[in-house]
Amino acid sequence: MESHDWLQMAVQLAMENVDRGGGPFAAVVVRNGALVAVGRNEVTPTHDPTAHAEIQAIRSACRTLGDFQLTECDLYSSCEPCPMCLGAIYWARLRAVYFAASRHAAAEAGFDDAFIYEQVGAAVGDRSIPMKQLRLSDADAPFDRWRLFADKTPY
Amino acid sequence: MESHDWLQMAVQLAMENVDRGGGPFAAVVVRNGALVAVGRNEVTPTHDPTAHAEIQAIRSACRTLGDFQLTECDLYSSCEPCPMCLGAIYWARLRAVYFAASRHAAAEAGFDDAFIYEQVGAAVGDRSIPMKQLRLSDADAPFDRWRLFADKTPY
Repeated sequence: MESHDWLQMAVQLAMENVDRGGGPFAAVVVRNGALVAVGRNEVTPTHDPTAHAEIQAIRSACRTLGDFQLTECDLYSSCEPCPMCLGAIYWARLRAVYFAASRHAAAEAGFDDAFIYEQVGAAVGDRSIPMKQLRLSDADAPFDRWRLFADKTPY
Repeated sequence: MESHDWLQMAVQLAMENVDRGGGPFAAVVVRNGALVAVGRNEVTPTHDPTAHAEIQAIRSACRTLGDFQLTECDLYSSCEPCPMCLGAIYWARLRAVYFAASRHAAAEAGFDDAFIYEQVGAAVGDRSIPMKQLRLSDADAPFDRWRLFADKTPY
């Protein structure tokens, strides 16, 4: 299968997902030309605001491969990943990402993707959800403990 | 309990989480002065790159409340949320966010938070992980289906 075919699969799954009661988004993870995992938007049926298609696909692929990194995998998503999913893509260290619809098409359909991109780029004090750093004397203590911890698994 | 106390709880949980084999991060969700959920970074023990403290806390709070939105809840995190978690905060529509350590302290401890903020703000073609929009004739078809679907749950 070529890149267009994997992406077409993601778009088809996104179409079908609407009928399943989920949002109009799906994604697949591919490694060495083989399907590793499928993810569908399941925010409302599972009461989980993080259950976007890409997050679901990444989590499923990691479970299948028994690893928290996907450095040899490509992600095909029916829509441009939102900032949450883009962050997950970086943490999972995917090799490449292909998508069909844009964040603007998502916005036109009523989803907040474009707005959240703006918010992530704004200064902490300028965001629509109030955010504040409070001063605690031991704020960095968890990092000090991490540096000293001998058995840690870096990531 | 005051805001400082809830944040202190998150920092203490982050400290303890290092000894449990997780990353040095934790978060709590609070509503009407009562603890709703706790989240700990469990990326490496669970092989899940999305298992950041804030994501875990949001998912747990949503399970507890049976809702995919947390509009009456505040989040206290031991560290400034990364873009993935910030995206989740917006999707969950939390009321406010408080944090202790900064993204720069996280970066100094070896975590990619600050780098990922840069990447999210970059144009699609300028990112360190190759990303590309492929042209598909039915790229927006899932959104068309969504618009026409009578029983959908908007979010």
